[in-house]
Amino acid sequence: MTIEVLGYAAQSSQSPLVPFKFERRNPREDDVVIKIEYCGVCHSDLHQARNDWGFSSYPLVPGHEIVGRVSSVGSKVTKFKVNDLVGIGCMVDSCQSCPACHAGLEQYCEEGNTQTYGSVDRHDQRPTYGGYSQTIICSENFVLKVPESLDTKAVPPILCAGVTTWSPLRHWNVGKGSKVAVVGLGGLGHMAIKLANALGAEVTLFTRSVNKEENAKQLGAHHVVLSTDESQMNSVANQFDLILDTVPYDHDLKPYIPTLALNGTIVLVGYLGEISANSVPMILGRKSIAGSVIGGIKETQELLDFCGEYNIVSDVEMIDMQNINKAFERMLKSDVKYRFVIDMKSLTKNI
Amino acid sequence: MTIEVLGYAAQSSQSPLVPFKFERRNPREDDVVIKIEYCGVCHSDLHQARNDWGFSSYPLVPGHEIVGRVSSVGSKVTKFKVNDLVGIGCMVDSCQSCPACHAGLEQYCEEGNTQTYGSVDRHDQRPTYGGYSQTIICSENFVLKVPESLDTKAVPPILCAGVTTWSPLRHWNVGKGSKVAVVGLGGLGHMAIKLANALGAEVTLFTRSVNKEENAKQLGAHHVVLSTDESQMNSVANQFDLILDTVPYDHDLKPYIPTLALNGTIVLVGYLGEISANSVPMILGRKSIAGSVIGGIKETQELLDFCGEYNIVSDVEMIDMQNINKAFERMLKSDVKYRFVIDMKSLTKNI
Repeated sequence: MTIEVLGYAAQSSQSPLVPFKFERRNPREDDVVIKIEYCGVCHSDLHQARNDWGFSSYPLVPGHEIVGRVSSVGSKVTKFKVNDLVGIGCMVDSCQSCPACHAGLEQYCEEGNTQTYGSVDRHDQRPTYGGYSQTIICSENFVLKVPESLDTKAVPPILCAGVTTWSPLRHWNVGKGSKVAVVGLGGLGHMAIKLANALGAEVTLFTRSVNKEENAKQLGAHHVVLSTDESQMNSVANQFDLILDTVPYDHDLKPYIPTLALNGTIVLVGYLGEISANSVPMILGRKSIAGSVIGGIKETQELLDFCGEYNIVSDVEMIDMQNINKAFERMLKSDVKYRFVIDMKSLTKNI
Repeated sequence: MTIEVLGYAAQSSQSPLVPFKFERRNPREDDVVIKIEYCGVCHSDLHQARNDWGFSSYPLVPGHEIVGRVSSVGSKVTKFKVNDLVGIGCMVDSCQSCPACHAGLEQYCEEGNTQTYGSVDRHDQRPTYGGYSQTIICSENFVLKVPESLDTKAVPPILCAGVTTWSPLRHWNVGKGSKVAVVGLGGLGHMAIKLANALGAEVTLFTRSVNKEENAKQLGAHHVVLSTDESQMNSVANQFDLILDTVPYDHDLKPYIPTLALNGTIVLVGYLGEISANSVPMILGRKSIAGSVIGGIKETQELLDFCGEYNIVSDVEMIDMQNINKAFERMLKSDVKYRFVIDMKSLTKNI
């Protein structure tokens, strides 16, 4: 027994997203069934739809910034009830027994976590399909509680873009007195500024565009530094305890490392590939380059609670499901402030 | 009033070291005058004698692994008295007022520390001359107590090679249960193995030479991994909390990063220059690349006390001062186990 669901899928790396009917599993006893209301559009949705990383399987239903309401629960579900406002991020399962999982770091599960889409369910071996769809079914252990007080349609990006920046901010102990810089002002960057500011840090945006200053300051940046201007870069030498580098493409790290303070770290959260640096400023200031990926379930819930407390959501542009291919094209040109979110009511329009 | 001292100096980047008479300052009230008994021969002595880093000034008297006995003290010296066994490492002064200095991290002094040789004294602007000489004069704040119980002639390398590996071992909290790997088995590498072992870690040596296994195990390594053998490298994937990379020349970091455990760090202590890596394993395991330089005065004293307690010294080959140029040539071929130390009694032979 399965449940038929309508979604949008890429049928190959060359094809646009089109309507697609598929089966989801019959709920297991620990499962929560969620009627999806909103789904954010992440850069990795586009990368995976087009097989940019070489491991996509088709049909591929993207979407891992999912917010909706519980429509039913399995017999052993204890944390959720019907009509609860909930979210699902990038993961729907993990081994739940390795040291990383026990530490609440399912994103680093030693067996590899089960991703919300493009993975294979570890119990029934069915492909996982994401949030560009009506309904999703997921073990309660990977379902998050969403505060009712927030503007619901602007919550989805918190579940990927948000926690991807939150996790390193927390891991590297950012708080009052910290100096944080953010490289790049996109989906991740704009959340990084809001969150670092709310944590009490002094926040600087590194950008290559002179015209981003006003936007960055509205989001909570205290300073904006033009990374192409050598004198501006020299003026912030040895300043930052943490730099969150959100840039998703190949770029030069060398100018940023001298701006780290003693014991400072630049954390790559956006770019998968070759990097180069010079060891001299690293050695002479015990500076580090690190990587970090999304966040664990516990810290994602912590973030949602924090956002509820501080009334933080993403800046979003709402789209209908039918406009997803146009949105992908605009996203490629960074023509969005700062995240597209699909209103899932649109899915059944004209059907 | 100054003190005439005999030493060995490079007169230019092309010349060998030759006998050289020079003046040291008349002791200030916080100064300790030390009759040098032994001085270690560090790779950076050779680099600076030959101006490999481009900032050497001549005449240059190398030597920053200095052990000797106090011959007199200034009127305000409280920590030392005549005949004490003492040491001087890479630094003889710093601003002593910046946050790094207050934290006991004079090696990262915001104004730059005053190096034992090749620097300029920050009070009288005289050049500093190192330990390839009879006598050195230094503020008591930069003089270390050397345990009398140790084999004195094998102590000098602790003051540079030792603390350069000790500082990151301590900063990254290595202890019982830690898994540590060391890249390279030279002056730094052999001390790293001894110290990590004594701290209770499980220690692995990465080497490119099959014939180093026995030596490494005698020094305290539990495992030896041939870094050129892909299957051996795969067998240690995701293992190490800390990798100490002591290699002093350009080399590929990419094979080592996948061997780091979740949250693991590879620390560069030997190589100044361009590095490259791949961000994928860093991001997928929150792994870091960091740099570290020598160690502060407080942690150097801590190390000397630890060595006294555990009876740890360097493995050394003693040379006469007159053979320093031959020693440099052998060092270039890694033909030393594992550090040359000059017996300073030899200095006045045949004079």
